Amino acid sequence: MNKTKSSNIVWHHATVTRQRRENINGHKSVLLWFTGLSGSGKSTLAHAVEEALHQQGCRTFVFDGDNVRKGLCANLSFSKDDRKENIRRVGEMAKLFVEAGVIALTAFISPYREDRLRVRSMMPHGDFLEIYCTCPLSVCEDRDVKGFYAQARIGKIKEFTGISSPYEEPEKPELVVATDRLSLEQSVNEVLLLLNRRGILELSHGK
Amino acid sequence: MNKTKSSNIVWHHATVTRQRRENINGHKSVLLWFTGLSGSGKSTLAHAVEEALHQQGCRTFVFDGDNVRKGLCANLSFSKDDRKENIRRVGEMAKLFVEAGVIALTAFISPYREDRLRVRSMMPHGDFLEIYCTCPLSVCEDRDVKGFYAQARIGKIKEFTGISSPYEEPEKPELVVATDRLSLEQSVNEVLLLLNRRGILELSHGK
Repeated sequence: MNKTKSSNIVWHHATVTRQRRENINGHKSVLLWFTGLSGSGKSTLAHAVEEALHQQGCRTFVFDGDNVRKGLCANLSFSKDDRKENIRRVGEMAKLFVEAGVIALTAFISPYREDRLRVRSMMPHGDFLEIYCTCPLSVCEDRDVKGFYAQARIGKIKEFTGISSPYEEPEKPELVVATDRLSLEQSVNEVLLLLNRRGILELSHGK
Repeated sequence: MNKTKSSNIVWHHATVTRQRRENINGHKSVLLWFTGLSGSGKSTLAHAVEEALHQQGCRTFVFDGDNVRKGLCANLSFSKDDRKENIRRVGEMAKLFVEAGVIALTAFISPYREDRLRVRSMMPHGDFLEIYCTCPLSVCEDRDVKGFYAQARIGKIKEFTGISSPYEEPEKPELVVATDRLSLEQSVNEVLLLLNRRGILELSHGK
């Protein structure tokens, strides 16, 4: 019994660190925060980057409305306060994925500068890479993949970013990707170049 | 531009699946849900199991009060409703870790049967393994690693599980570990045996 007790004290804290996880993964972990209007290609780009990274043997995960709004944040609305809380929860969760050694990618409109800055400030320095997907509103509205813009124009959706609610542009994003001018392949390459510049993938040769 | 648009449609959904992640990891993912009184050794055991799994090359992550109550659930109290919401959020987050190919381990008292059943029901069948750390209240109170029992006895902590709030035992846990009778090493082995029986680690030979 004494043995168990003393073992408790020895073992209580985590011994598996982010560093050790990165070592077996063969790459560093980081948070890629995609932001931009609905229809600007955030989710498409995030998933394409994930596919490219996975093919290189990286551990990845994409958070978007599909897996967050129906789960962790199912009890939140789209009011300003609830959007704020949505982004906070996503940030806290992504932080743990980064701690777990995963390259986390988030694809949310995240229209408020303050909310994005808050996530940036909660992450260790250099672990938050903001990727601004730019695309003219007219193009996003023309794409209207989910039909949201049409509903927002006739008032069926209230507080819709770009129509009836503001989008606050990032002041110093780590990367700007003009999804209306670049092909998806070119856009993916821009993100991979950023990761290379930051040394995120540098351990992958040792894998 | 048309290329980009059509690419969008092709690429929009996730192509990196749990199965593909499990393949590069060399093991299956699962949620190990440790439950029991404060001081019953949940967190100690979870971290020791994580260490053993990491040494076998597994991807793991432990959730406990330290990384959840100060982050994702920092805006929750210890009232019954907030405990319920705490467990819900942990369950939803752990579900995404499992989807990400990680062996997720949670170490929360999680005293209410209903809350644990809810997490079990939200996970794919067989992905929720409930591990009940049993230990007599007197032993937990004697250990009192965090000094909580002393504070609960004099009423400084309200609604403390086992003292002023109920602990509802699991009806059909996948494993019961008597942490007052087994050494930590023996307890870890019990969990590893469970994982072997369930075939969670079977891909690891191919790594």
